[in-house]
Amino acid sequence: MNSLLNRTLESASRRVEAVLGRLLKAKPEEPASIRKAMRYSLFAGGKRLRPALVAAGAECCGGRAARVLKAGAALEMIHTYSLIHDDLPAMDDDDLRRGKPTSHKVFGEALAILAGDGLLTLAFETAAANARECGLGAADTSEFIRVIAAGAGTSGMVGGQVADLGAEKWKGRLSRAKAGRLLEYIHLHKTGALITASLEAGAILAKASAAQRRALRAYGRAIGLSFQIADDILDLVGDKDKLGKRGSDAANQKLTYVSLYGLERARAEAASLTRRAHRALAPFGARAAVLHELADYIVTRDR
Amino acid sequence: MNSLLNRTLESASRRVEAVLGRLLKAKPEEPASIRKAMRYSLFAGGKRLRPALVAAGAECCGGRAARVLKAGAALEMIHTYSLIHDDLPAMDDDDLRRGKPTSHKVFGEALAILAGDGLLTLAFETAAANARECGLGAADTSEFIRVIAAGAGTSGMVGGQVADLGAEKWKGRLSRAKAGRLLEYIHLHKTGALITASLEAGAILAKASAAQRRALRAYGRAIGLSFQIADDILDLVGDKDKLGKRGSDAANQKLTYVSLYGLERARAEAASLTRRAHRALAPFGARAAVLHELADYIVTRDR
Repeated sequence: MNSLLNRTLESASRRVEAVLGRLLKAKPEEPASIRKAMRYSLFAGGKRLRPALVAAGAECCGGRAARVLKAGAALEMIHTYSLIHDDLPAMDDDDLRRGKPTSHKVFGEALAILAGDGLLTLAFETAAANARECGLGAADTSEFIRVIAAGAGTSGMVGGQVADLGAEKWKGRLSRAKAGRLLEYIHLHKTGALITASLEAGAILAKASAAQRRALRAYGRAIGLSFQIADDILDLVGDKDKLGKRGSDAANQKLTYVSLYGLERARAEAASLTRRAHRALAPFGARAAVLHELADYIVTRDR
Repeated sequence: MNSLLNRTLESASRRVEAVLGRLLKAKPEEPASIRKAMRYSLFAGGKRLRPALVAAGAECCGGRAARVLKAGAALEMIHTYSLIHDDLPAMDDDDLRRGKPTSHKVFGEALAILAGDGLLTLAFETAAANARECGLGAADTSEFIRVIAAGAGTSGMVGGQVADLGAEKWKGRLSRAKAGRLLEYIHLHKTGALITASLEAGAILAKASAAQRRALRAYGRAIGLSFQIADDILDLVGDKDKLGKRGSDAANQKLTYVSLYGLERARAEAASLTRRAHRALAPFGARAAVLHELADYIVTRDR
């Protein structure tokens, strides 16, 4: 990883973890188990990509990273809740994530479901607090919440997960063209929507223009897709130890870029999206240095 | 049911259902199944108590019911998501609710979990839209979201559900005094917190004073507890057909007011809380007529 990106991610990670630690402190008036379960998954070794995107989105538009930490924490909570629910037996039924037992293996299914619910709820409270601290007006505050909810909900991440549920049995049921459209829908929504919402949330807190927000959306859409294609490739060829879970997608014959188009075309598509991401950042000039590096990193990472 | 209360609930129900219908319309760009699952549970015959409380909270403080419909819809979405997740096999494992198959029986567990997640997310987007329409300032908007999140999250409803998870095995493990404190915690949080948040959300949209909000919180706390005690009584003595589910709490030997204190003391406690609810409404005079009737209705209803 390039050193500027590395420094930025590490700094975002350290600062947002301090905020998350404060927000998730045990409270004597609440059952200890629920906050313990929420903390377990929040501090299970994520790279804090979404908080870094919130910070970068703000900085591209002239804002300061230190002012958008709670929004970063909120987006990380939403990401974490989605992983907890996604790992449940009724969904992907994964026992391990990043080499550690998943929430429901440690705390039981009921508490895992509620830990996810609690994180999603706390995310909106935390985001709203950040909007007030940044002095957003009422219309901007409402728009800020709308952007986060749209990225997380049925028009975004939840919609992508629903589409993904049915995608296991695509072979023989869908034409190649239809399978390709379904796959793009899943990729754009399951991961891309929250990535884009993170960038845009940072931009709104920095009182960005409509053109700036549009540019960040185009960038987010491109890296969201390339991120997911890279994930599909990693699932097939990645080192099992580094992944921390078995290559379960490939084993399940799931619909992926690799299973549909083969490894070579998947790599070419990721490269093309990376070029598109760089172009989208043109309006920001040097302020987008980190986002340029991130676009390259996403398709070369080992997870 | 008294006719004023009846008219108010029916009118709130009709109006909020129209809003919910618009908000939950099928969208061509989203998977059809998720909105279908969300609508199934939202339109499964609820009394729309929380929207009525949002409206009543606003009216007590000089606001208009027609201006807080989206907030009512948001609180109903949060209530509905909690029922969907609560009915899951990993939680209460209920096959029926209000005489109809529960979400996971109809749509499968995965989609039921996601329908709950989608409703919770849409609730915050919808609430934020209402804050903008009411012209709240930034600080009030943030406070409005905070109140709803606090009622729904680990300091409220989710916290109550977590405490409830462990309450099945209270016999022999807890002293009567400790079991009593745990029970009050569960009752206050599992139902009371969202009831109180509904009243307060309406009050904030009507730009209520701190004293008005305090009075509504005291009222909400009292009827939240009496509501839950009445529920415990209904679980034991209620007509099974009217309930639409088996008296599963009693069957499971769950910790309830009735199992802990007996029927007579449970009824006396509900009556005492009802008197406290009436007293809390004193500052509002005649504007609180509906809430007075509601306090009486809650302990005499058949569900």
